[in-house]
Amino acid sequence: MSAIRYEHIKTCKQSGARLGRIHTPHGIIETPIFMPVGTQATVKSMTPEELKEINSQIILSNTYHLYMRPGHDLVKEAGGLHKFMNWDRPILTDSGGFQVFSLGPLRKITEEGVEFRSHIDGSKHFLSPEKVMEIENALGADIMMAFDECAPYPASRDYVKNSLERTTRWAKRCKEAHKNTENQGLFGIVQGGMYKDLREQSAKEIMELDFPGYAVGGLSVGEPKELMYEVLEYTTPLLPEDKPRYLMGVGSPDALIEGAIRGIDMFDCVLPTRIARNGTAMTSQGKVVVRNAKYARDFTPIDPECDCYACKNYTKAYIRHLVKANEILASRLITTHNLHFLLKLMENVRQAIREDRLLDFREEFFTKYGYEL
Amino acid sequence: MSAIRYEHIKTCKQSGARLGRIHTPHGIIETPIFMPVGTQATVKSMTPEELKEINSQIILSNTYHLYMRPGHDLVKEAGGLHKFMNWDRPILTDSGGFQVFSLGPLRKITEEGVEFRSHIDGSKHFLSPEKVMEIENALGADIMMAFDECAPYPASRDYVKNSLERTTRWAKRCKEAHKNTENQGLFGIVQGGMYKDLREQSAKEIMELDFPGYAVGGLSVGEPKELMYEVLEYTTPLLPEDKPRYLMGVGSPDALIEGAIRGIDMFDCVLPTRIARNGTAMTSQGKVVVRNAKYARDFTPIDPECDCYACKNYTKAYIRHLVKANEILASRLITTHNLHFLLKLMENVRQAIREDRLLDFREEFFTKYGYEL
Repeated sequence: MSAIRYEHIKTCKQSGARLGRIHTPHGIIETPIFMPVGTQATVKSMTPEELKEINSQIILSNTYHLYMRPGHDLVKEAGGLHKFMNWDRPILTDSGGFQVFSLGPLRKITEEGVEFRSHIDGSKHFLSPEKVMEIENALGADIMMAFDECAPYPASRDYVKNSLERTTRWAKRCKEAHKNTENQGLFGIVQGGMYKDLREQSAKEIMELDFPGYAVGGLSVGEPKELMYEVLEYTTPLLPEDKPRYLMGVGSPDALIEGAIRGIDMFDCVLPTRIARNGTAMTSQGKVVVRNAKYARDFTPIDPECDCYACKNYTKAYIRHLVKANEILASRLITTHNLHFLLKLMENVRQAIREDRLLDFREEFFTKYGYEL
Repeated sequence: MSAIRYEHIKTCKQSGARLGRIHTPHGIIETPIFMPVGTQATVKSMTPEELKEINSQIILSNTYHLYMRPGHDLVKEAGGLHKFMNWDRPILTDSGGFQVFSLGPLRKITEEGVEFRSHIDGSKHFLSPEKVMEIENALGADIMMAFDECAPYPASRDYVKNSLERTTRWAKRCKEAHKNTENQGLFGIVQGGMYKDLREQSAKEIMELDFPGYAVGGLSVGEPKELMYEVLEYTTPLLPEDKPRYLMGVGSPDALIEGAIRGIDMFDCVLPTRIARNGTAMTSQGKVVVRNAKYARDFTPIDPECDCYACKNYTKAYIRHLVKANEILASRLITTHNLHFLLKLMENVRQAIREDRLLDFREEFFTKYGYEL
C-alpha cells in the first residue's frame, strides 16, 4: 500500500475545483493547499511552531540544496529531515531537477543523468534518477518527487518531446530505485511544455507507471499566465480523479485561485517568503511595498483585515523602519504575514468549494481587491 | 518625586554585592540585572514575547541610532518607544555620547556639544545636552542617560580631567533640560578614566546634582579587565547606597560576576547578541563556536545544561548547518540561547547574594567551567 492516499471530498459545482484530503505518514493535509518552501531545511526566518500557528499543514524542502549542504547522509544520521529540522508534520521534497537544469552552462545532461558543478564551491557532482532516490530516501519526506527534466520556455516541439520522453524513462528508473515505499510516496511529473499533444503523451506515459500522485511540471517557467491556465485546462483532465495533483512553483494569489479552479490540489512557491525579505507584503488591498516612503508615518497594520501576529502588534511605520534598518525582525514579521495571507486564502478557497461558489469567490476577490502580483 | 526608585534588599555578607529592586514606571527590575540591547528599537532577531519568555526585565535602546533613523519625532508620534516597538516593560536609553565620540574624524567637540556626520547618509548633525534630552524625552524610556563625554583608553590625565569636567557641566544642562521627570528618570554618569582622584572628583560633582541613579562610564573601552575591576573597586564605594549603579557596555559572564561583587546593579552589552549572529554561543562549558567543523555531526544541544528553546529543540549539527547556510533561524536560535544564558546567570548571581555566597558561586562557576570570553 502506498504511503500517500488521496481522499476526494467533493467537487465544486460552480467551478469544478476539488476539495480533498491527502493522507500521509505525518498526518492529513486539506486540499487545495499552499506549501511554504523551506529550501535549506528551514522556512526562512520562521520556527516550526510559528508555521503551525499560521496553519501550515505541509512544507516543501529542496533536495538539491540539502544534498549540497549539509549532505543527505548527515540528515539521515540526524534521524531524517523531520527530526533534523524539528518539524513533525508532512514534508515534500522536490527532485533537484529544476535547480540543476537552472545551472545553465554549469551542467551537462546525458541519458544517464546530469553532471554539474556546485553553486557553493564549484565541486563536480552527478545526479541520476537512482542518486536522487537515494538522496530523497535519506531525507525521508512524506512525498518525494521523481527526477525530471523541466524544459525551458520557449522551447521547440522537438526539444520538449525529447525531454518529456527522457522524463518518462527517468520516472521509471526512479520508481525502481525508490527504497522506502511504505513511508514515502513518490509522485510522477507530467511534462510536455505548451504542446497539447505532448502533454497527452506525457500524462499517458507517466500514469502508466502508476504513482500515488502527479505533478504538472514545466509551468511557471516564464510563460504568460494565460498560457499556463490554458495548459492546465487540457492537462488536469488527463490526470486520475483519485490521486492528488500538484502544480509546481506557483504562489501568486490569483494563480492559486485559478489553479484550484482548474483542478489543482497542491501548490508551492518561494514568492511569499522571498518578497517578504525584500519588504513587500501581500494584503487584502493588493501588494504593499512596506519600504516605500509613504508608509513612514503610517501607524496602521500592514493589512487591516488580517489577524496575524504582525498585523495584530505592529504598524507599517515600525516595520518600514525595521526594513530600512536591515533588521531581521522585518523579515520575520512580513514572512509571517505573507504566509498567513496565502494559507488563509486557501482556507477561503476550500470553504468556497464546500459552498459551490468558487467562481463567485474569485470575482469577489478580484473585484474587491483588484489583486495583481 | 523621581520616576525611578531603588530598593535595597540586602548586601551579600561574603562579597559585598547588592541585591535590590528598581521601581520604574513600566514595572520592577530585580538587580543585579543584565539588559539586552535593542539598538534600533529591536533586540536583533527577537520579538518582545520571546524576550519575555527568557525573562528579560528591561532592555536598552540607542538614542543616536533612533535619532538618525527613524527619527525621535516619528517615534514620539507613534506614541513613544514602548508602543512603537511593542514592548511594555522598562526601557533604558543611552545618550548617544558613546556613539558620536566613536565617529572619530567625523565629529567635532565644543563646549556647546558635538557636531558630526551621519553614518547613514553623511548629513551634518549637532548633539548638545539640550538636544539629547529632547530626543530622550521624545523616546520616552523609563531611564535616560545624561549626555557625557567618554574618554578613550589610554588618555592623558589632562584630557580625562577636561573631559570629566565638561561631563559635569553637560550633566547640569541635561538635568535642567529634562522635561518629563515624572515618567522618566535621568541617570548621571561618573567619568574620570583610570585615575582614582579624577573618579573621586567626578563622583563628587555628579552626585551633587542628585540623580536617581548613577552609571560608571569610561570603562570597557579597551583597558585590561583587571584595570576595570580596580577602577570599580575605588569608584562604586563613592556612589550612594540608595541609588542604582550601572556599568555601561559590559556583558561577558566573568565581568558580570566581578562587577556584581564590586557593587554594580545594572549591565548592558551587545556581546551576546553580536557573537550569536556570528555563530558563537556562550555556554556552561565555555564558548562554543557552533560554525566549527567539529560540530557538523554533533547531534547534542548547544548547551546540555540549558533549557532554552534552542537547546530543547535543536542540535549543534542543525544550527551549524543554518549558520553555514546564512539562515536567519541561526541568528534567532543562538541569540535566544545567549541572552537566556546571561539572564539565567544573573538570576543565579541574585540567588547567591541572597544566600551570602557569591564568592563561592564565582569560584564554582570558574572552576567548573573555566569560563573565558
